[in-house]
Amino acid sequence: MSTSLEQRLFQALEELVLIDPHTHINPHAPASQTLADILGYHYYTELAHSAGLPKDCIERPNLDPKTKVGRLVEQLADLDNTIQVSWLIEMCQEFFGFQDDRLTPQNWESLYDAAAKKMAEPDWEEQCLRRSKLEGVFLTNDFDDPLTGFDTSRYIPCLRTDDLVFKLDQPQVQERLAKATGVEVGDRKSLRKALRKLFEHFTKHGARACAISLPPWFEPIDFRKDAGEIDSDLRFVLGGEEPEYLDELIAEIDVELVEETKDRFYEQRRDDVVSPFIFYCLVECCAEFGLPFDLMIGVNRQVYPGGVYQGQDLFDMRVSLIQYAPIFNAFPQVTFPISVLGHTSNQELVSYAWIFPNVATNGHWWYSNIPTYIEQDTRARLEAVPRNKQIGYYSDMYKLEFALPKFRMYRRVLAKVLASDFVIARGWSEEQAVELGRQVLRGNVERIFYGK
Amino acid sequence: MSTSLEQRLFQALEELVLIDPHTHINPHAPASQTLADILGYHYYTELAHSAGLPKDCIERPNLDPKTKVGRLVEQLADLDNTIQVSWLIEMCQEFFGFQDDRLTPQNWESLYDAAAKKMAEPDWEEQCLRRSKLEGVFLTNDFDDPLTGFDTSRYIPCLRTDDLVFKLDQPQVQERLAKATGVEVGDRKSLRKALRKLFEHFTKHGARACAISLPPWFEPIDFRKDAGEIDSDLRFVLGGEEPEYLDELIAEIDVELVEETKDRFYEQRRDDVVSPFIFYCLVECCAEFGLPFDLMIGVNRQVYPGGVYQGQDLFDMRVSLIQYAPIFNAFPQVTFPISVLGHTSNQELVSYAWIFPNVATNGHWWYSNIPTYIEQDTRARLEAVPRNKQIGYYSDMYKLEFALPKFRMYRRVLAKVLASDFVIARGWSEEQAVELGRQVLRGNVERIFYGK
Amino acid sequence: MSTSLEQRLFQALEELVLIDPHTHINPHAPASQTLADILGYHYYTELAHSAGLPKDCIERPNLDPKTKVGRLVEQLADLDNTIQVSWLIEMCQEFFGFQDDRLTPQNWESLYDAAAKKMAEPDWEEQCLRRSKLEGVFLTNDFDDPLTGFDTSRYIPCLRTDDLVFKLDQPQVQERLAKATGVEVGDRKSLRKALRKLFEHFTKHGARACAISLPPWFEPIDFRKDAGEIDSDLRFVLGGEEPEYLDELIAEIDVELVEETKDRFYEQRRDDVVSPFIFYCLVECCAEFGLPFDLMIGVNRQVYPGGVYQGQDLFDMRVSLIQYAPIFNAFPQVTFPISVLGHTSNQELVSYAWIFPNVATNGHWWYSNIPTYIEQDTRARLEAVPRNKQIGYYSDMYKLEFALPKFRMYRRVLAKVLASDFVIARGWSEEQAVELGRQVLRGNVERIFYGK
Repeated sequence: MSTSLEQRLFQALEELVLIDPHTHINPHAPASQTLADILGYHYYTELAHSAGLPKDCIERPNLDPKTKVGRLVEQLADLDNTIQVSWLIEMCQEFFGFQDDRLTPQNWESLYDAAAKKMAEPDWEEQCLRRSKLEGVFLTNDFDDPLTGFDTSRYIPCLRTDDLVFKLDQPQVQERLAKATGVEVGDRKSLRKALRKLFEHFTKHGARACAISLPPWFEPIDFRKDAGEIDSDLRFVLGGEEPEYLDELIAEIDVELVEETKDRFYEQRRDDVVSPFIFYCLVECCAEFGLPFDLMIGVNRQVYPGGVYQGQDLFDMRVSLIQYAPIFNAFPQVTFPISVLGHTSNQELVSYAWIFPNVATNGHWWYSNIPTYIEQDTRARLEAVPRNKQIGYYSDMYKLEFALPKFRMYRRVLAKVLASDFVIARGWSEEQAVELGRQVLRGNVERIFYGK
Repeated sequence: MSTSLEQRLFQALEELVLIDPHTHINPHAPASQTLADILGYHYYTELAHSAGLPKDCIERPNLDPKTKVGRLVEQLADLDNTIQVSWLIEMCQEFFGFQDDRLTPQNWESLYDAAAKKMAEPDWEEQCLRRSKLEGVFLTNDFDDPLTGFDTSRYIPCLRTDDLVFKLDQPQVQERLAKATGVEVGDRKSLRKALRKLFEHFTKHGARACAISLPPWFEPIDFRKDAGEIDSDLRFVLGGEEPEYLDELIAEIDVELVEETKDRFYEQRRDDVVSPFIFYCLVECCAEFGLPFDLMIGVNRQVYPGGVYQGQDLFDMRVSLIQYAPIFNAFPQVTFPISVLGHTSNQELVSYAWIFPNVATNGHWWYSNIPTYIEQDTRARLEAVPRNKQIGYYSDMYKLEFALPKFRMYRRVLAKVLASDFVIARGWSEEQAVELGRQVLRGNVERIFYGK
Repeated sequence: MSTSLEQRLFQALEELVLIDPHTHINPHAPASQTLADILGYHYYTELAHSAGLPKDCIERPNLDPKTKVGRLVEQLADLDNTIQVSWLIEMCQEFFGFQDDRLTPQNWESLYDAAAKKMAEPDWEEQCLRRSKLEGVFLTNDFDDPLTGFDTSRYIPCLRTDDLVFKLDQPQVQERLAKATGVEVGDRKSLRKALRKLFEHFTKHGARACAISLPPWFEPIDFRKDAGEIDSDLRFVLGGEEPEYLDELIAEIDVELVEETKDRFYEQRRDDVVSPFIFYCLVECCAEFGLPFDLMIGVNRQVYPGGVYQGQDLFDMRVSLIQYAPIFNAFPQVTFPISVLGHTSNQELVSYAWIFPNVATNGHWWYSNIPTYIEQDTRARLEAVPRNKQIGYYSDMYKLEFALPKFRMYRRVLAKVLASDFVIARGWSEEQAVELGRQVLRGNVERIFYGK
């Protein structure tokens, strides 16, 4: 904190009690049991691997948690510059009484034991939530999650739909869907029936959002006008039933490009038609059931297949929100809180949210979730997007302990921007600035997901 | 203003009398008559609509101005964070004695009346110009504008050519051109003749620039070497006369891709050949008549067709200035002041202006016209582009009242950059810094558009 | 320098003795002889040309150095805002006792003479290195450089491979390769044999890196699985021997697109297959010989063919590191220090270096080598890439005198970022911050290129 103004704004933002609108928390085991749950977060495993730690040192089956932590700590000195390691240190200081500023081969074991003891306290989950000032935590639920056995007002279900849009060609995903809904999908009618069953199940259990992550190449289609051959494509992609026109088309394609094959044609129909159609049907359900649809745009999966678990995905900055215009236009009644993976996509996000009533800005995702980019992206959003359409931050955490340092990072940046761009540059009172902070941190989560 | 150094530089920049090198002022009604002219600016209507105001609340025909303002004010609380609303407040404080820091349902009516009274003063236009320190205002004129009835040394004509390049396939545009020039265009000879007539008319009336906005997909072509089938394409696109080779080509295309049609072929010839050819001919005229050609690169029109008037356009960041290299190379004698819609395009603009003698940087356009992006773009330009090739800012305004707050926003950013990057970081004197500011704000407008 | 903290960090960084990991120094004439060697640097010629100086004023054959400097100085007033001219002034003040803050038509001659006198001192090269705190300088050597006649521990050879990958279709390049290696290349076996000879030669003479600059369109291929028709393509592209399947293919292509020709097919095989294959074989050699492969990604050559020498190249920001994923995956044992030409590519670089163990960040290249972009790129790298994988800076210089001002520019930015983001924002001690600076400035050069 460089100024006392920033410091005061930060303290005021720290007082706010929040609802975290996107996490990967397991509601049946929301908090950590050992430091291995903390250091096993993909940020640490992937950075340690990137800095030189072989993958099998930390991913061997049956590796005991303490050994795993010890190995990761050996590499930490190469990562101590990263903001991710600063989360770790801040969390350990805050929760486990850690006194040092570095976690080292010399000091980690006592921390490990202190943390394990703390985490074993029966109300550890409550302590985490209370000290992190969290009263609600959005989940990321598989479509066939029974959504039972936990308090859905505290852990709010969210229907994650990646498997439906991108993996429904796999028999096991079709089986999961059939089991969850009682519907065997094979054409548009059965598909819509199955999806509606999912939405009924999720909204009955208090779901507040539908969500999906999308690759840069994905292009939604507005199917309102023409869904002519969709049934034929669905039967082909989902059931392997070749369309009548295939032989004719393949013949021509083969003449044109020798390597063109039936497999490639299948992939084209799957990626360019069937996935967009399922996506389109999900948006229809969002409209019918009144759910916002969180779009997380821009991730390429498995770019580095030799990477650690969850440390294999990257991106291609050559993506544009114009790809989504057809769907924004087709569904004005659905709100789309949008996250972009690339900082270079932020200006488009700002501009689309500035124009489209149903586009909202949503947090700072993954590779853009570092202060350098949060600061610039936050500045632009606060300057050009209506204040009621900005969801400031979500933690994306897998374990509750991460909410505190991650939201604190965001609060620091937000305090800095509010101080420089609003209080100093535009003469706002500190109260006005804090109220704007409150709205993007809390108010808009209530407005957009709870209709308050 | 965070430092007294910045403050001093800002004050010095505020003293400068300017020529605004790009606006949409109507010279027959340059200033506003009521606050509805101010709040009707698309920034407010589109942001209010984006924040929740239905379009028909403010776009109903025969809506009286006071009602319209009242409805927009109801939504303003959701936009008060935006820099655009800060223009509004600053303007009202400066021109109409407004004392508050927010425009609200409680205080707007008295402001409305005070503004109407002020605007009714017979010398309101003069007052605006004087207090805004403007002595010249570039216009944006349709190609068939008679350019009469106003002082062209104060309101400087500028030939806007979007309709010629992108809409000449429309009969009504051809008719307008025929009416304006006496030439029916149908081939390259008649096209060039008509365009030359326009340039004669505009330069005779003191025009200082030709201008156009361009979509991301547009790719200029250097037609010097080969314009073989152009006449055939012109007759096809402008006159509907099918080229001889069409049947043969269509036949082949139909074999290849079933959906390919004659319509699509027509569009391809229009977009990929005829539009670039008309553009090329305009650049020829700029060379012959000695006019700079303002290129405003990157806008996609009507991405959100349901949006308010002038609030429907967006962009696709996937555009490169390399698309324009053929034309920069073909016409070294024509200066191209270039605006880019995307902040992500700024480094290319800096680099192309750094290398090409005929490329100049021009202002901060539309979605990039917010302090976050102005600051970064200004820093890079001042660090790497020769100082005699930078046009700092234009207002893009529709009504004179906007010059003051918009230029002031730019002057604040410029003062900040001059303070930090030149006076502090590089030891420049304040006088040297202000002189650099003067050159980008005023000197280069004179050099580039007036040849001084 | 705006704060004393920054100033202290800068002074500490100034004490570091460095190895410059990428330059274009000629080891037989490393320092300048007159100011024409300094002002002949393409930054000055291209900026002066861009500002209005005709190319033939400074590129006429037999132009004497003093006249050339005089002509460039005439234009300097238009460039004095640029960071590149600030290098010039700082260098002249530091090395030649220059007292003014501008180089003008009035004061340049005495500087010219003072510089010539200084440069004539027998130990000028030593003085330059000592005052610039340089103990090693990486070179950029043609593949057929004999690498003799200089101290290769001071001037470290680096195998530059652009000619091999992009120009081996030219007979004179094939001849140079044959002369250097004794191998006539015509298929994959002879190609690999020749390349291995080059690597033997270079590593025997102390080479520490292989390097190449790459255009945005280049897409490496992992040839491990299938190199089926490579020999046929190599014989076609390198030797003009038409592949058997060509007639058949050309026939079909001609049906499809009338303008398609054999030339175009040749270019396609050259650019899409043969260049990637040679690149692939170079990476194989890097693996075998233990050399890092510096990739400088994103330059389009000769975009402005009318520009001054070395002032004709630009870029297209539409490039992605995902194009390189196949090669990062195929060669985990090869380290790729990567430079990107576009600031907009920096986040991808950060993200790829964060995930891939064999990707390192390397300096700030060319159009990104200005403080505005260095600062933002440095901030992001220091926040998200393991500290042992970041090479902070290289000078890219052609003459030794430039190391001092260019590294100083970087040190200033680095001190600023370390002060704000580490000492102030994260509570690091100044010693910890300087140690991080030392590692990116010096330590990682030793680790990555010397295996220390």
